[in-house]
Amino acid sequence: MTSIALCTMNNSARSIARLCQASRSAHGTADFHSFVSRYSTLRKCAFLPGGKWSFIRAGTRQMSQASPGRISLGRYGKGVFLAAGAAAVTGVLAAGVSHFQRAEMATKISKVEEEEGDVRERCKSFMSPPVTDIKVLEQRKDEMSTRMEMLIMETQAAFCRALEEVDGGTFKVDRWSRKEGGGGISCVMQDGKVFEKAGVNVSVVFGNLTEEAAKQMRSRGKVLKGKDGKLPFCAMGVSSVIHPKNPHIPTVHFNYRYFEIEEADGTKQWWFGGGTDLTPVYIDLEDAAHFHKTLKKACDKHHPKYYPDFKKWCDNYFYVRHRGETRGIGGIFFDDLDSPNQEEVFNFVKSCAKTVVPCYLPIVYKHLNDSFTPEEKDWQQVRRGRYVEFNLVYDRGVKFGLATPGSRIESILMSLPLTARWEYMHEPTKGTKEAEMLEVLRNPKEWI
Amino acid sequence: MTSIALCTMNNSARSIARLCQASRSAHGTADFHSFVSRYSTLRKCAFLPGGKWSFIRAGTRQMSQASPGRISLGRYGKGVFLAAGAAAVTGVLAAGVSHFQRAEMATKISKVEEEEGDVRERCKSFMSPPVTDIKVLEQRKDEMSTRMEMLIMETQAAFCRALEEVDGGTFKVDRWSRKEGGGGISCVMQDGKVFEKAGVNVSVVFGNLTEEAAKQMRSRGKVLKGKDGKLPFCAMGVSSVIHPKNPHIPTVHFNYRYFEIEEADGTKQWWFGGGTDLTPVYIDLEDAAHFHKTLKKACDKHHPKYYPDFKKWCDNYFYVRHRGETRGIGGIFFDDLDSPNQEEVFNFVKSCAKTVVPCYLPIVYKHLNDSFTPEEKDWQQVRRGRYVEFNLVYDRGVKFGLATPGSRIESILMSLPLTARWEYMHEPTKGTKEAEMLEVLRNPKEWI
Repeated sequence: MTSIALCTMNNSARSIARLCQASRSAHGTADFHSFVSRYSTLRKCAFLPGGKWSFIRAGTRQMSQASPGRISLGRYGKGVFLAAGAAAVTGVLAAGVSHFQRAEMATKISKVEEEEGDVRERCKSFMSPPVTDIKVLEQRKDEMSTRMEMLIMETQAAFCRALEEVDGGTFKVDRWSRKEGGGGISCVMQDGKVFEKAGVNVSVVFGNLTEEAAKQMRSRGKVLKGKDGKLPFCAMGVSSVIHPKNPHIPTVHFNYRYFEIEEADGTKQWWFGGGTDLTPVYIDLEDAAHFHKTLKKACDKHHPKYYPDFKKWCDNYFYVRHRGETRGIGGIFFDDLDSPNQEEVFNFVKSCAKTVVPCYLPIVYKHLNDSFTPEEKDWQQVRRGRYVEFNLVYDRGVKFGLATPGSRIESILMSLPLTARWEYMHEPTKGTKEAEMLEVLRNPKEWI
Repeated sequence: MTSIALCTMNNSARSIARLCQASRSAHGTADFHSFVSRYSTLRKCAFLPGGKWSFIRAGTRQMSQASPGRISLGRYGKGVFLAAGAAAVTGVLAAGVSHFQRAEMATKISKVEEEEGDVRERCKSFMSPPVTDIKVLEQRKDEMSTRMEMLIMETQAAFCRALEEVDGGTFKVDRWSRKEGGGGISCVMQDGKVFEKAGVNVSVVFGNLTEEAAKQMRSRGKVLKGKDGKLPFCAMGVSSVIHPKNPHIPTVHFNYRYFEIEEADGTKQWWFGGGTDLTPVYIDLEDAAHFHKTLKKACDKHHPKYYPDFKKWCDNYFYVRHRGETRGIGGIFFDDLDSPNQEEVFNFVKSCAKTVVPCYLPIVYKHLNDSFTPEEKDWQQVRRGRYVEFNLVYDRGVKFGLATPGSRIESILMSLPLTARWEYMHEPTKGTKEAEMLEVLRNPKEWI
């Protein structure tokens, strides 16, 4: 039952909890930096029988064969559609690969083995059995669709367990299937001690791209030619929105997704998208710097332009145009990422997915016992209203999901807060903390 | 200071209040029918110095001249855009009128005089000076744009005063202007005794139709040809959404609007739109029947097909597609109404506008002192969430307003409730009153 280290953030969160509680009681919040930095060393852990976690060393696992011809297709809960499958991916790779990509492919299997470990063992840490049958995942262990499904399942589990740890509550886990192909696992904790509503959703869906979805693809620069109007696709992702009760704990959102699509001539396309962003109710410079620095560190490992470019993209994307405000203080956002090669983009996405706990949990623990006034709670509720406005009016994933027949509405709309408020002509008084927050939303800042 | 009877609903509401209070204390809610029927006789009243109202007989007023060449243009707060102006309207009438229309025109001025009275006197009852200067309104008294502006101002005042009467609170009145032309008067009462949020908005706007607006027109069957890409338009309307605190008092919405547009060849088009609909939290058959019967009576005076056609249109329009539910129990909804002629359509719209108080206020008074549980309040909040979903995702007026530069966002979004709630996977237990409500929303009924 020993296993390669995965789902690493989970145990780390528990460690943060302990560190934080210890440092809060002993030294107050000044130890924020110390537990944030110590946290970064706590990365390797594994799931042991009885639901316990333990730090272990990475080992090796037997590998399985890739099986040809699977068409894995689907819809990404908060994102857009794409088509293809394992055969499709193989085709893409065989068709237009560079020398660099071929070299990468040759080393891929051993990398998977080294970093990602045994599929069946890894599945034990998940919130539910994965969407795809474990046997199929084992058979297709080295395919990108499998590696990504494993990553999103692990990210969901790690984040959910970190949140359960701090809240004391338990996620309700709904495993659902989609008539048209695929399904998902929605984890929601509602009205907890710390969190008003916490949703972490995985979806792995496949089918044929609808005409509406295909149009949306084209508008994003992809010209896709279907066969008899059909574009087989596979889409998967993990997405999460966490709305805490305490107005001093910010809302966080993240989403990492992968798409494959197969065109009429057999051409396969794939890309990744994602991002993590923070929506505080009040500005805390230390929190903002920690959040952005953690993301920058993950980005910098892969490309020096990723953080500045994706930070800007995030500010532009999460913009409530009719209010002239960003939704929050940003983070990173990217889409249509398909270069330099599949392996490198996957590794980048993996780095990002592994930052969600260290980005957010230290901030949660820091403010866990902050006191707040009814006025501060009201301001939080007004900001929640703006969050609803963004999600229902602008969010591409939500709009797409609502317009797509067979969507699981409850999973798409789990991003909405438990409660929200709309006050007519609400405008904070000059010089207040509320006005300071609004100023930042109206003029996005550099946080590092 | 004597004046023709207008703004009739205002005083009637006060009378209803008295009647209702009397009948509740003496006989309980069984007297609902008696005060509803008695209400219909209380129609003529006037505004007296000192803000008091009195029942008076209709008299006659001097009339003013129409002045040529005004281009009045604008945006309708919750609706769509149209173009033209007084000159434009004159053009339309001169261009394509039937014998019936000419005959109607000949009698128009005396009708205006008889039914609508002196402009300056009528303006005294408004919540604020009208958007258009009173002198201009006096000069163009017989133009449709003036008659409609007077009607929407009166409807706003009548409804606001009826709500103030029952709530005990006071509307905040914001008079605003639009850089591109025109303006509006937004009346909002927030966190009152009876009403969580009550908004009654008038807008009278003009300018040139944007390309986006023109496209929206075309999609609705109007092919409009601009000059150098410009389409001068005038749009005006009154719209209201009332969210009460008590879950046994339903939310009401109404909206009556008028558009004029001028095409490149000088052709002028005009049309009316509108509707009144009810969104209860719990089904009350008597309320539903009263509401629909009141609307049917107003419709039947003008055309026997209006009520059944516009009732169906309402059910189709206020449909939250992604939930498979209507927003409420409907009412009437119509758009693009431009036949049989302008006078008759205006008279129909006037009949509708005059039903808003008798449709709604008896229901408010009936449930004023109903007790409710925290669970009933929660269900109301969940339904408020659905209301937000409809308004932000589907409502054509809101979508159009948010996409239009220079819109007054606070007036467009005043329709959102003060508070709302989103519970993950909320589904009422079978056999409960909540399940009964949902059943009706999933399968719209005939209420008469």
